[in-house]
Amino acid sequence: MTEVQAIEWTGRKLRLLDQTKLPVETAVFEAGQYRDVVRAVKDMRVRGAPALGVVAAYGVAMAARDIPRDERSSFLTRLEEAGREIESARPTAVNMTWAVRRLLDLAEAESDVSAVPGRLLDEARAMQEEDEEVNRRIGGFGSEIVPDGGGVLTHCNTGALATAGYGTALGVIRAGWEKGKRFQVFHTETRPFLQGARLTAWELVQLGIPSTLIVDSSAGVLLNQGEVSCVVVGADRIAANGDVANKVGTYTLAVLSKENGVPFYVAAPTSTVDLSLPSGAEIPIEERRAEEVTSFGGVRTAPEGIGVRNPSFDVTPHRYVGGIITEVGILKEPYTESLARAVTGPRGDER
Amino acid sequence: MTEVQAIEWTGRKLRLLDQTKLPVETAVFEAGQYRDVVRAVKDMRVRGAPALGVVAAYGVAMAARDIPRDERSSFLTRLEEAGREIESARPTAVNMTWAVRRLLDLAEAESDVSAVPGRLLDEARAMQEEDEEVNRRIGGFGSEIVPDGGGVLTHCNTGALATAGYGTALGVIRAGWEKGKRFQVFHTETRPFLQGARLTAWELVQLGIPSTLIVDSSAGVLLNQGEVSCVVVGADRIAANGDVANKVGTYTLAVLSKENGVPFYVAAPTSTVDLSLPSGAEIPIEERRAEEVTSFGGVRTAPEGIGVRNPSFDVTPHRYVGGIITEVGILKEPYTESLARAVTGPRGDER
Repeated sequence: MTEVQAIEWTGRKLRLLDQTKLPVETAVFEAGQYRDVVRAVKDMRVRGAPALGVVAAYGVAMAARDIPRDERSSFLTRLEEAGREIESARPTAVNMTWAVRRLLDLAEAESDVSAVPGRLLDEARAMQEEDEEVNRRIGGFGSEIVPDGGGVLTHCNTGALATAGYGTALGVIRAGWEKGKRFQVFHTETRPFLQGARLTAWELVQLGIPSTLIVDSSAGVLLNQGEVSCVVVGADRIAANGDVANKVGTYTLAVLSKENGVPFYVAAPTSTVDLSLPSGAEIPIEERRAEEVTSFGGVRTAPEGIGVRNPSFDVTPHRYVGGIITEVGILKEPYTESLARAVTGPRGDER
Repeated sequence: MTEVQAIEWTGRKLRLLDQTKLPVETAVFEAGQYRDVVRAVKDMRVRGAPALGVVAAYGVAMAARDIPRDERSSFLTRLEEAGREIESARPTAVNMTWAVRRLLDLAEAESDVSAVPGRLLDEARAMQEEDEEVNRRIGGFGSEIVPDGGGVLTHCNTGALATAGYGTALGVIRAGWEKGKRFQVFHTETRPFLQGARLTAWELVQLGIPSTLIVDSSAGVLLNQGEVSCVVVGADRIAANGDVANKVGTYTLAVLSKENGVPFYVAAPTSTVDLSLPSGAEIPIEERRAEEVTSFGGVRTAPEGIGVRNPSFDVTPHRYVGGIITEVGILKEPYTESLARAVTGPRGDER
């Protein structure tokens, strides 16, 4: 078994496993400054809400290193601008904003400007380690809901590639498997970017966990035929009431699960929770380029002259969500209470 | 506006608009004997239940022309074998069986063997004309349920390319448009074969009807946001109780429609009804090659070592079906009665 590492910090730059090239090619994209991070995120060389949080943190740290520090207030202004550029590279995942704000607050609090780059870099590294640790805890809690026998269905990619390591929803599957449970793993190809066919399939092959790839539309067949006993997906942003924004197709899986009496779980770190939004209606949904749908590998598949809608995410209302598996436990309805408690925590330190 | 003709009989052979090449290339596949028809169907150069019925008929007619006719019983035996080969090229659509049986019955009934090829060819031609006429009647009834304003969502390809002409579900959309109704047309890309992105988009561009292409998983977004006021799809086989086998993803659209209070219609000729099957559970579902899912245009997209399930169709239970639009009218629950009446007909001639 190979442990997949999507994000590596070399001391001067970020080395990212290029997720536009997998599984055909294992290439590395090097980001030497924060604008390279912005580009890598927009081009989806790195994706997945938790991974985006980590690379956003390194991006801010590189910006702090590269922005002239002779004048404190102009340094902070330019760092703030760089932060905004980074967090707006993709609008739906809240983890980028969460990470950028965490680092900017640190920079603001540090009176000695020359110490800022070092402190931010330490923080980015800590966040990377923390994310993997958080995911292992999610896996621990989630492994309880994974069946021994039966089938587990997941969507998109939520594994080591989508995080600093181990994964969220795929981490739950992995943790169940590592505990010795045996079940059939099904995963969707996840159009249009094929994160499931390209990335989840690749990770599962690396992990040695047998799995079956289906087109997104076949999920209904498996659910209706009783082959799936549990659905588990990730999240890009969770509103205060438990509404979940995640890869487009998630809402459909939630509705199919409800219709067929199959439990539907979301696995995500509490950094994905955005208590500032009362419901999913306020979550910004990224609309991506038409070419993702009308062509493949540069080859046109749809005719000229056709309109396209390409929302990258959808919102699943909380009433479909059977539980949200976080690093502090499996949260249940009423989510308004359980999420607030999980985020502000028994430690009382609101993030 | 160009009238699309997918199937053309030249007197000696069948010219098929090659649907594996559209929309990039308008190529013709020529079938000079029945085995070419079998191959064209297996390779999906021609697809769509009504179109499959028509080419199956021409296939049997060509077999009757080419099989030696010196001994009647051996001629009929070999013709029967050819018919079985043709109808088993794709198992789910009942129209092939329906067409093959219709021609074989004619051959059986004709005492003068030398007259069989001519009679079968006349019948195939009649069935081609009949199919287009049937579709125009389906369009006429269906145009009533199409909204003026709002949105109509369809799946796969059910237009002129899938039939002898005009189309079934896409014919309903077209008929509504031709009546002067204006509405937003949405259509799914329809993985894995992209019948929607490649063929439906191409037909709608030819027809000059503005339309929006989405990935299959985005249908949930549109339905949940109230942008779709009606869903209309085709059918490959309809059981006696109204359960509908159609392109994989249809069941999912039906469930999403129900969940969001949107009417869900099936448009199909009565030749698609199979009264011999009590329910959808008995409909054979074709499982196609894994490569349709794991590669694109010869380029591998999923890693080696991953399992694949690729059911080409699914079954939508009749309770989700708001109406079945046929050439004799829009059928409603109880389907066991309305379908039987439609098939045996006021003419009393059970088919």
